[in-house]
Amino acid sequence: MSRVVKLAVIPGDGIGPEVVAEAVKVLDAVTADSGVTFEKTPFSLGAGRYLETGDTLTDDDLAAIAAHDAILLGAVGGVPGDPRLKDANIERGLLLKLRFELDHYVNLRPSKLYPGASGPLADPGDIDFVVVREGTEGPYVGNGGAIRRGTPHEVANETSVNTAYGVERVVRYAFALAERRRHKLTLVHKTNVLVHAGGMWKRIVDAVASEFPGVDVDYLHVDAATIFLVTNPGRFDVIVTDNLFGDILTDLAGAVTGGIGLAASGNINPDGAFPSMFEPVHGSAPDIAGTQKADPTAAILSVALLLDHLGLVDEAARVTRAVEDDIASREGARTTAQIGDAIAGRVQA
Amino acid sequence: MSRVVKLAVIPGDGIGPEVVAEAVKVLDAVTADSGVTFEKTPFSLGAGRYLETGDTLTDDDLAAIAAHDAILLGAVGGVPGDPRLKDANIERGLLLKLRFELDHYVNLRPSKLYPGASGPLADPGDIDFVVVREGTEGPYVGNGGAIRRGTPHEVANETSVNTAYGVERVVRYAFALAERRRHKLTLVHKTNVLVHAGGMWKRIVDAVASEFPGVDVDYLHVDAATIFLVTNPGRFDVIVTDNLFGDILTDLAGAVTGGIGLAASGNINPDGAFPSMFEPVHGSAPDIAGTQKADPTAAILSVALLLDHLGLVDEAARVTRAVEDDIASREGARTTAQIGDAIAGRVQA
Ligand SMILES: CC(C)[C@H](C(=O)O)[C@@H](O)C(=O)O
Ligand SMILES: CC(C)[C@H](C(=O)O)[C@@H](O)C(=O)O
Repeated sequence: MSRVVKLAVIPGDGIGPEVVAEAVKVLDAVTADSGVTFEKTPFSLGAGRYLETGDTLTDDDLAAIAAHDAILLGAVGGVPGDPRLKDANIERGLLLKLRFELDHYVNLRPSKLYPGASGPLADPGDIDFVVVREGTEGPYVGNGGAIRRGTPHEVANETSVNTAYGVERVVRYAFALAERRRHKLTLVHKTNVLVHAGGMWKRIVDAVASEFPGVDVDYLHVDAATIFLVTNPGRFDVIVTDNLFGDILTDLAGAVTGGIGLAASGNINPDGAFPSMFEPVHGSAPDIAGTQKADPTAAILSVALLLDHLGLVDEAARVTRAVEDDIASREGARTTAQIGDAIAGRVQA
Repeated sequence: MSRVVKLAVIPGDGIGPEVVAEAVKVLDAVTADSGVTFEKTPFSLGAGRYLETGDTLTDDDLAAIAAHDAILLGAVGGVPGDPRLKDANIERGLLLKLRFELDHYVNLRPSKLYPGASGPLADPGDIDFVVVREGTEGPYVGNGGAIRRGTPHEVANETSVNTAYGVERVVRYAFALAERRRHKLTLVHKTNVLVHAGGMWKRIVDAVASEFPGVDVDYLHVDAATIFLVTNPGRFDVIVTDNLFGDILTDLAGAVTGGIGLAASGNINPDGAFPSMFEPVHGSAPDIAGTQKADPTAAILSVALLLDHLGLVDEAARVTRAVEDDIASREGARTTAQIGDAIAGRVQA
């Protein structure tokens, strides 16, 4: 029985191409004798493409990508302060556009402290939680504007838009995930200040909770959540939160679990109407691009999330185990390719 | 030469009264022979008052408080989930109302790791920075609303309002502060997503920077800032940021510098048009109220900020030094009053 998966590959800018090369290496290794073939189409997108052609993401690009089964993305973004990029917003015009157009309403970000990985906490305990970040609403919608721009009378507004439809579907996903894990769900918001959006999130979580009587629910304000992430991260199992709070919490979570070089993510459309997209949480780090100093582990763990999403659970588990073993035996500095080779070797063994 | 300072005291709820009692004890001790008299007026405000009378903050309360020279606040907020408080929003109706009505546009939150204090970081290094959080704009303005509330078609919006007037004055304050400190200012925002508000913040910081050529300026996205707070907090001197990002960063900063029991804050109106308000960053912690388990240090350090604001810099320094000495010699558990007594004793010595 053979299966073909059409995979759009967006290496992007900076260290993106380097880490994606290793991720693809591991993907090929783990699927070598599996009867599943990944047909890969590369897409040249990011600051590099913008500087060459002036395009960020054309309608044709989007349509071509949407015709795939899944997407693997490295990182996008040019050198900060590059004057040629002054009027470009690669993040909004490319990354966020993909998330919004492909209705990636679940931004899935697992945080696990693997034995051997070392973070900044003196006494981290067992850390193993997943942030389910809403991906298509909230302060990220781009519904803002300014008047009297550049004058002393400028007013700049940003509107966070939240719908019951959008919140309920991601909350339901988070509950189902908690049911398959340690049965604990924490809503993070700021209900005492953002009373309308926060109030709706809270009401919807309470309503959906009645369908999942086996899941314990608690609530934290976002400020308090950051405290617990450094004083007692073991208390978390599944966190569900809005787009902006999820962005903040997952960078912090990445830091406490050994650094953003290990943090993977999936931008998921659970309905399957659009291809889901898998990417490391880290950025393009142009300062170390081309030096083989980047850690490809986050990109490789993103491949594990991709495999899992496609139902290839054994392959996903093999990648995760290989990464775990690799981290546990790390010693001395290795190049990006050496780490990729080591993990690819382990998945085949 | 004698001077009278009219101080409004709002002990509030939960542990508020306990920590305020110790803060006042230290205030009295440090000003005993100084020729400055603090004339204190207590105000009964908070969840307790609301439950008794249904009032949160009346116009008369506000006018009476505004007639003082400064305000000392403990903490406000009832027991989470108390059904009688379902329709109250003590935070918005009292705390935020005071900050907004009294134009507390500088929310000043110093973070220092005192010798002897222990935080969650394995290798914290020297931590000594101040967050200058904007206090009267941003996502806190309360310009939100919902339609079709409680239905599957609900839409809940929150609008962040930012003005050049409001941003410039707080940015200017932050630069002046950096000039008196280690000459480094970091703007934290999310300019790649919140392009209008973030863009204006960035432009204003760049413009004001030209008036402070001795101050080094850098910029971090809020997600990256949380990473540095746990991996390299020593890199920060003065952080300037918006109301919501400031809320999040200062709780995290409190945690990494030994816990929210030590974190002080000032809600300052630098123009002197309204009284400034000093309060610990922690909340009312109703679960330990009345048990003498609360640490009054944050409230006492808020008194140091109050004294400094009033120009009583020697007295402020004596309080800070007493706290520093107390922290350095901590051993075993003490009651709230024992900690207050110890620090009051040290300021007199
Ligand atoms: C690059 C940026 C727009 C993006 C985000 O804010 O979502 C990134 O920080 C992330 O977390 O994937
Ligand atoms: C109680 C709450 C409204 C408040 C805030 O969000 O500003 C608190 O968290 C703080 O930081 O002082």
